[in-house]
Amino acid sequence: MSATERAGTVAAALEAKGLTLPVPPAPVAAYVPAVRSGGMVYTSGQLPFVDGALAATGLVGQGEGDVDPAQARDMAATAALNGLAVLAAALDESEEQTPESLARALERVRVVKVVGFVASAPGFTAQPGVVDGASTLLADVLGDRGVHARSAVGVAALPLGTPVEVELVAEVVDEPR
Amino acid sequence: MSATERAGTVAAALEAKGLTLPVPPAPVAAYVPAVRSGGMVYTSGQLPFVDGALAATGLVGQGEGDVDPAQARDMAATAALNGLAVLAAALDESEEQTPESLARALERVRVVKVVGFVASAPGFTAQPGVVDGASTLLADVLGDRGVHARSAVGVAALPLGTPVEVELVAEVVDEPR
Amino acid sequence: MSATERAGTVAAALEAKGLTLPVPPAPVAAYVPAVRSGGMVYTSGQLPFVDGALAATGLVGQGEGDVDPAQARDMAATAALNGLAVLAAALDESEEQTPESLARALERVRVVKVVGFVASAPGFTAQPGVVDGASTLLADVLGDRGVHARSAVGVAALPLGTPVEVELVAEVVDEPR
Repeated sequence: MSATERAGTVAAALEAKGLTLPVPPAPVAAYVPAVRSGGMVYTSGQLPFVDGALAATGLVGQGEGDVDPAQARDMAATAALNGLAVLAAALDESEEQTPESLARALERVRVVKVVGFVASAPGFTAQPGVVDGASTLLADVLGDRGVHARSAVGVAALPLGTPVEVELVAEVVDEPR
Repeated sequence: MSATERAGTVAAALEAKGLTLPVPPAPVAAYVPAVRSGGMVYTSGQLPFVDGALAATGLVGQGEGDVDPAQARDMAATAALNGLAVLAAALDESEEQTPESLARALERVRVVKVVGFVASAPGFTAQPGVVDGASTLLADVLGDRGVHARSAVGVAALPLGTPVEVELVAEVVDEPR
Repeated sequence: MSATERAGTVAAALEAKGLTLPVPPAPVAAYVPAVRSGGMVYTSGQLPFVDGALAATGLVGQGEGDVDPAQARDMAATAALNGLAVLAAALDESEEQTPESLARALERVRVVKVVGFVASAPGFTAQPGVVDGASTLLADVLGDRGVHARSAVGVAALPLGTPVEVELVAEVVDEPR
């Protein structure tokens, strides 16, 4: 498929933004990265892992030692990208999942709801700006199908010290656009 | 339509409680106030804006400088009213939405789930009493269709310093009652 | 029904683990323990009540006076068991609900999504280990139908000082397994 043929596709949008769908994390015993129920898919809360590591840990804020809100915003985008990867893996029925087949699976995804949890230093109330990182990535990759309802919440602490955690609820649309 | 004809309707319930559906907030770039997916509607986290302003900011608690729980309860009701407004706007297919057409759209809404986030001062654990403001408003306006499952959670901080944030999941019922 | 006939059932799994479905809490005015909407059931946030009492209150952490993470994990399992009880009560259409009829109702439940809120002392970031208590219980009781997507979040405070709160979204499967 040429670049022209890819125009308007998720694969093209990922390429244009320099993004690569990460390999979804391995499922653990008692829960899984995503569950499909009828026409909906629910993801587990996604951490902004890149190659299994977090770029920063701690609370987001303006104080010394806090995670900078701009960095947290980037990490929210990474968490959302990881969320797309687990959605794709849950829907891609290819015998062997490839970056291409995963991107194709996302043609059938419409993101409905996002909750962005921001581990917040005392007094930090700019959670929406942080979670915008996730929202913008979803719209960049999925276009209209990435525009969602959203809650942004400031919490006391998150798993492994991650500054942000993002969960997605998505709808499976019948026909690829 | 006379007051008698309105009896039992959402419009009548709003009038009886002295409530007015606010103009829903303008959508922003990357997310929207509410998304419909099949028979469900998910709202974004609603803040207790009145004419674009918050009546109080800070953490809810019993200490000096804390937001009083009774005021927070009133603000939770306001956030829930704003949630009804965005549900109505998402469902009202009138060419021009009016207070009447928005109230009519709510005849087709059943609230299924509410999450109430309460920005909580250390040691404050009476989140349910605060979120009761939202729950009571929903039952007041929608009757049986406003009775929902609910989680009340105390968080570290919320957007713009709001003491409360309320999100709704609603079902679209086929026939108006 | 003999123990052999019960093999593989929810009743058998509960018995094998020494678990008893608790009597669901009485509904309160403005919200209810669970709401069914089409093929889904949403529970209210569940507290780890045993006979109406909490085994511990406070924040989970490693410091003096904190709730021990191992105890919090056990309490997360209790909250999940209470969640199963309210799911069962919402689905059991027997004229008189009994422990047997409630366990049978759970044969039609598939847990789709779990959110575990952990009231967290400053610096405590091992929320996943705490919420594993809930995840493991669900898999123990429901088998494959208990494996879910999940978010674990550390919050500032929870109702009545509970260290953990667990909410469930479940699917009603047409045929008992």
